[in-house]
Amino acid sequence: MKKLINKVENIVEEMCLGIAASHSDLVKKHPTHNIILRAKTNSKKVALISGGGSGHEPAHGGFVGEGMLDAAVAGEIFTSPTPDMVYEAIKAISSQKGTLLVIKNYTGDVLNFEMAKDMAAMDDLEVDYVVVNDDIALENSEYTIGKRGIAGTIFVHKIAGALAETGASLAEVKKVAQKVIDNLASYGMSLDGCTIPANGKKSFEIGQGEVEIGLGIHGEKGTHRESLKTADQHTEQLFNFLLKHHNPKKGQKVALMVNGLGATPLMEQYIIARKVSELAKKHQLEVVDFQVGNFMTSIDMPGFSLTMLLLDKEMESLLKAKANTPALKVVK
Amino acid sequence: MKKLINKVENIVEEMCLGIAASHSDLVKKHPTHNIILRAKTNSKKVALISGGGSGHEPAHGGFVGEGMLDAAVAGEIFTSPTPDMVYEAIKAISSQKGTLLVIKNYTGDVLNFEMAKDMAAMDDLEVDYVVVNDDIALENSEYTIGKRGIAGTIFVHKIAGALAETGASLAEVKKVAQKVIDNLASYGMSLDGCTIPANGKKSFEIGQGEVEIGLGIHGEKGTHRESLKTADQHTEQLFNFLLKHHNPKKGQKVALMVNGLGATPLMEQYIIARKVSELAKKHQLEVVDFQVGNFMTSIDMPGFSLTMLLLDKEMESLLKAKANTPALKVVK
Repeated sequence: MKKLINKVENIVEEMCLGIAASHSDLVKKHPTHNIILRAKTNSKKVALISGGGSGHEPAHGGFVGEGMLDAAVAGEIFTSPTPDMVYEAIKAISSQKGTLLVIKNYTGDVLNFEMAKDMAAMDDLEVDYVVVNDDIALENSEYTIGKRGIAGTIFVHKIAGALAETGASLAEVKKVAQKVIDNLASYGMSLDGCTIPANGKKSFEIGQGEVEIGLGIHGEKGTHRESLKTADQHTEQLFNFLLKHHNPKKGQKVALMVNGLGATPLMEQYIIARKVSELAKKHQLEVVDFQVGNFMTSIDMPGFSLTMLLLDKEMESLLKAKANTPALKVVK
Repeated sequence: MKKLINKVENIVEEMCLGIAASHSDLVKKHPTHNIILRAKTNSKKVALISGGGSGHEPAHGGFVGEGMLDAAVAGEIFTSPTPDMVYEAIKAISSQKGTLLVIKNYTGDVLNFEMAKDMAAMDDLEVDYVVVNDDIALENSEYTIGKRGIAGTIFVHKIAGALAETGASLAEVKKVAQKVIDNLASYGMSLDGCTIPANGKKSFEIGQGEVEIGLGIHGEKGTHRESLKTADQHTEQLFNFLLKHHNPKKGQKVALMVNGLGATPLMEQYIIARKVSELAKKHQLEVVDFQVGNFMTSIDMPGFSLTMLLLDKEMESLLKAKANTPALKVVK
């Protein structure tokens, strides 16, 4: 597999420079670290910081901006950022109202973000965190104790980010972020591995007629492999996992996401979205927000995940609030 | 290569249904044809209609909405829409101020859109058109007399769409669309073919260490094949073609686009964007707008194109105007 890169060791830095150069009205790169910051940092609102290993673009640098994140820390590919890096992001904003870290549940991320919180405490910077664990496919996995955090994380950024923008307190922002997490479920599947830039090889191979169900965003094992079926069959299969988990009542308001893993054409994502919409109607769910696209990728993996978030009035209103980031905008 | 589809013959219709279902606040599907219309059609402004073969998503259905297109006609994959379909799109809006067709320069598209114009004339609907030919790689190609139309078309949609929104006349909207075309240049390259859904096979194969330069968005031949180099080298190579074509003066304001062809990860697109930004600085261009992402794809082709648009005050101001479409939003 061929890649458009320069030196492997410079990928993440060059990518961060590219994000900053092309969206300079919205974001900038930290002068010394692979951190994307808002073009104008604001220490007077609760700072919302996320991040993790790279390879999931636009997550998370693409979600920095008005109404969402204040900073995103970009670790090496599929590798947690170091505690130092997260600490630098916290310091770069130095919010007087406190900082909320949005951590995807991977053992390395949780450890390193927690350590950064302790480092910041020594500077009298108030930091708290939430851990997103929306992937209901597995209870534990290769890289994680407990459920993994995947594409549903974007709804945490959006809703907590919108509340932080109103001047809410750290406790309030944490509370709404946790409410999103408590009402969130995602489930993914993949048609093949992704190409790791360091060696140009597929992370793993799946047989010609096979797919992996419940797969994580680094190519970690899912629940099982099975034969490739139609888009509608796989969509219903994944949607049913979400329904079973949530058991939503009729008329429940929901936000939905069809997330492409990197190499799945938008054409296929919309075919899936059509079926999701049919199923939502069949189960009498009221779809208030419906995102389709590449939000949390696995480099160039073909596949997708579905996310369902059960909404109350507060979450619905925050989801609809203005946002202006490179990868997600809400026009008012 | 595996695909997430149902029946091959339903791909385009199911995709259109998916676009409409997931962005129902912005767009809807025509009741009988594969046409994406604004959720509320408006016959009191100049109607802007584009389209072409499918497989280039989000083009063009993703650009229907406030400040851009009024309708997008989706032909079968890599196949021009029929004159009937384009005529139906014109009738669905029936603009009292006239309709401008934005046609990418492919022989079939030009013929069929022109025929639709003639059909509409019999209903006393005033229709005019522009032909986008931004691909400077080849003077003529397999499918085209004259230069092909590729990703730069999005800037035509944006700028002409913004002017139409102000209540401008058909002649004025056509004039600004033509001005964009006259100041537009694009150049693409590919690392491999794309997978045609009808047979699940690659449109063509490129050797392991090779790339195709000047390639079209259907996998038509480019200028030549050569060995894969670094991202920076290929970016500079393509950027230099644009510079040579435009020969911009120092301080010239430009809009730039790095367009992914479908399977090129955003990570790589931002590495390219970083180099584009460096080169623009080196040549003392003032970058006013910089789009990075998948705008005009070739299903799942790995590769990218660069677009440079030379701006004057009018185009700059229209480019920055509010837009709210599924695939391109400008937040004011």
